[in-house]
Amino acid sequence: MQISQIYGSVPAVPGITVSKSEAAPEPETRRLRGSSQLNRWSRARALRSGRKLDRPTTRTLEPNRNPTVSLSPRETERETTNRLSLYPDSKAAVVEEEGVDDVGFTVAKSIYMVSDGTGWTVEHLVSAALGQFDYCFVDRGCPVNTHLFSGIDDAEKLLAIIKQAVKEGAMLVYTLADPSMAASAKQACNLWGVPSTDVLSPITEDIASHLGVSPSGLPRGASGRNVPLSDEYFHRIEAVEFTIKQDDGASPQNLANADIVLTGVSRTGKTPLSIYLAQKGYKVANVPIVMGIDMPRTLFEVNPEKVFGLTINPAVLQNIREARARTLGLISAERGNYSDMDHVREELEFAARLFAENPVWPVIDVTGKAIEETAAIVLRLYHDRKHKCTMPTISKRY
Amino acid sequence: MQISQIYGSVPAVPGITVSKSEAAPEPETRRLRGSSQLNRWSRARALRSGRKLDRPTTRTLEPNRNPTVSLSPRETERETTNRLSLYPDSKAAVVEEEGVDDVGFTVAKSIYMVSDGTGWTVEHLVSAALGQFDYCFVDRGCPVNTHLFSGIDDAEKLLAIIKQAVKEGAMLVYTLADPSMAASAKQACNLWGVPSTDVLSPITEDIASHLGVSPSGLPRGASGRNVPLSDEYFHRIEAVEFTIKQDDGASPQNLANADIVLTGVSRTGKTPLSIYLAQKGYKVANVPIVMGIDMPRTLFEVNPEKVFGLTINPAVLQNIREARARTLGLISAERGNYSDMDHVREELEFAARLFAENPVWPVIDVTGKAIEETAAIVLRLYHDRKHKCTMPTISKRY
Repeated sequence: MQISQIYGSVPAVPGITVSKSEAAPEPETRRLRGSSQLNRWSRARALRSGRKLDRPTTRTLEPNRNPTVSLSPRETERETTNRLSLYPDSKAAVVEEEGVDDVGFTVAKSIYMVSDGTGWTVEHLVSAALGQFDYCFVDRGCPVNTHLFSGIDDAEKLLAIIKQAVKEGAMLVYTLADPSMAASAKQACNLWGVPSTDVLSPITEDIASHLGVSPSGLPRGASGRNVPLSDEYFHRIEAVEFTIKQDDGASPQNLANADIVLTGVSRTGKTPLSIYLAQKGYKVANVPIVMGIDMPRTLFEVNPEKVFGLTINPAVLQNIREARARTLGLISAERGNYSDMDHVREELEFAARLFAENPVWPVIDVTGKAIEETAAIVLRLYHDRKHKCTMPTISKRY
Repeated sequence: MQISQIYGSVPAVPGITVSKSEAAPEPETRRLRGSSQLNRWSRARALRSGRKLDRPTTRTLEPNRNPTVSLSPRETERETTNRLSLYPDSKAAVVEEEGVDDVGFTVAKSIYMVSDGTGWTVEHLVSAALGQFDYCFVDRGCPVNTHLFSGIDDAEKLLAIIKQAVKEGAMLVYTLADPSMAASAKQACNLWGVPSTDVLSPITEDIASHLGVSPSGLPRGASGRNVPLSDEYFHRIEAVEFTIKQDDGASPQNLANADIVLTGVSRTGKTPLSIYLAQKGYKVANVPIVMGIDMPRTLFEVNPEKVFGLTINPAVLQNIREARARTLGLISAERGNYSDMDHVREELEFAARLFAENPVWPVIDVTGKAIEETAAIVLRLYHDRKHKCTMPTISKRY
C-alpha cells in the first residue's frame, strides 16, 4: 500500500494517559483480639492485607477528551512546525495531584511504541532503555510520555500513528513481525522525519542467520500462526496457580511441593517476589516471620537448599511500614508497634537469629532493590545451588 | 581492560539446563458433600485448586555435571574446531521424558544471553524473536537452547562466557548498560567470530538523541545508581497484592475496588490473566461462573464497563479439562461431569446467557490465545472504553 493512498481521512490519536478512579475510602475496621502475640500477628496481617486510602494515583488525566478530531495532512504538516501549541487544552490536562509540573506536559518528549502483536516486548525494551535515563526523571526534570499501540496490523492504522508522531514530535519504536509493515514504518518515518527504531528486525535477522531458517513474519496471535501453546506455557500457569494458594504462609503442609520457599518479615516483598518468580515458571511458597510466632514445622523439614531468607535495612523497613500504615489510613493506636523503630529492629533481629540457625538458607538484602532485581538474585542462587557450576545460568529449550 | 589480559584462567561455563524434581504424588483426597449443585461447585474448586500428578516436566537435565572444569585458552581454541564433540556426556544428558530427541541436544543451536543487570530484558526480547521461529520448534525439528547469564558486571566473566560461546558455536545477545562492557563484548565477538547482537545500545542511543540527554551507563541495581523506586512501582506491588486476595471469587464485596473484573467458567484462564494484568499495575478481581450457582450480587452493581467475560471453544475447553483431570490423577468417578462434553457445552451456554443479559461486558474468546494476548485485548478495550478514542493506547509518564 502506498503511503499517499492513506492520506484521505486519518483519525487523530489523542495522547491519552491512564486515568484511574480511586474507590471510595473504606476505613480499616478489622478488630484485633487475643494475646499481644496474636495481636501483633493479626495487626501484621491486617496491615498486609489492607487497602490504601486517600493516596493520589501517579497516573494522570488525558490531555484531549475529544475522540473524533481528524486532521488533514496539510494541518498535520502545519502543526508540526509548532510543536508546543499542539495541545491547546494541555494546561488543564496536567492538573496533577502533586502539582509538580503544571507546564511539564507541553515540553514532555513522547515515545510512540507500535506493535502488530501484544506490544509487551517493545514496552519492556523501552522501559529498560528508559532506565538509563532515570536520573533525568527525578522531579520530572526531563519528562517523557510513552504511548503503546498494540495489535496494529494494517498499514492504515500504522500510518495514522506515524502522522500523529509527526504532530507530537514523538519518536517511534516498533516491533512489527510482518516485514512489509516494518518496511512501511521505516519508509514513512524517513519520509516524514520521525526518528525511529526497529527493535525486532535486527535480532530476528541475526537469529535467522544463526539458525539457518527464515522467520515466519507472523505476529503473535496472527490467524496464519497456528502453533499450539507449549507445555512450558502450561507449566507457568500452574506455577502461578500454586503460588497464589501458598501466599502469606497459607497451606504450610504444601511447602514440600514448592520449588522455592521465601521467608522474611512483613514488607520485605515476599508476595510480589513470589508472583514474579511464579510467572517465570517456579512454584513459590512464602512464609512470613512474625516475632514470637512459631514458624511452621514444615519449613525446617523441606530441602533447605530451596529456602531463601529476605532481610532489609531497619530504617528503610520502618519507613515502608510507616508509609503503609499512613496510606491505609490507620490512626496511631491501630498501628501498634508495626512501624515502631524498636519493634522493627527487634523483629529483624528475630529473623536474623532464625537465619543464623539455618545457615544453608541464603539471606538476600532487599534494601532499595526492585522485585525484578531480587528475583534475578534468587534465581541465580537457585540454579547455582542446583547445578554447582562456576557461572550460574538459566537455560531453556525451544 | 585488554582482552589478552584475561586469558589467564577462565572458568568453564557448562551449558546447564534447569532440572526440576517433582514432589511425590499426593492423591486428591478432598471429599465432596452436599447437593449436586454444591458438588459441582466443590468439584470445580477441587479441580481448580488441585496439583498435577505424574506429569513429566518439560525442562531437562544438565548436560555437564562437573562444576569445576576449567579450560586453558589453547584448549578452548582447539575444541572450537570440533564443535559437536564438546559435550562428551551429552548423550546421557538428553534422556528426556518424551524421548523425542536422543540426538537433539548435540545439534541444537545455542543462544547465549548476557546482561549486566537482571537479564529479563534480553530474555524477553530473545523469546519474542524466537516466536518468529516457533514453526521450526514443532517436534523439535530445529532445537534451540537459550542460556541466560545475568549480573555479568566485569570483563573477566564476560569474556569467559564469550569463550564458551565460541566452543559451543553459540551466538551472543547482550544488554550491557556499561558502554565499556558493550564495547568489550563487541570486540571479543568480532575477534573470535561469535555472531552477536547488542539489543540495548541502539535503542538507548536513539532515545538519548531524542531526549537530548546522555544515558547513565549504569546497569539496574548498580551501586552508583541511586534512584528511588517510583510511586508507579509501589502501585504495581499493591495491585498484585489486591489481585491475589480477590482470586477465584474471594471477597466479592471488594469488586467495587477493582479496576478490572474478569468472569468466565473454570479453565478460561481467569487466574493467570488476573495476575498478568496485576503485574502491569491493574487491580483485578475474578469471578468464576459455575452452572446453577448464583453469581455474587456485587458483580451486577459495579460499573459494567470494567467487567470482561471470557469464553472458549467447547471442544478445546473439554480437552483442557480432560487433561487437567488426568494430570490431577483423578479417576473417572471423581471427575464427575467437569470434563464431560455435554456439561462443558451447557456451562458455556449458561455463561453465554449471562453475558447476553449484560451486553455492556465485552466477551473475549480465549481459544488458542496465550495469556499475554488476552491481556493485550483486555487492556486495549479497557483504555478504549475509558477514553473513547479512535485508537486505543496505553500511556505512561516518566
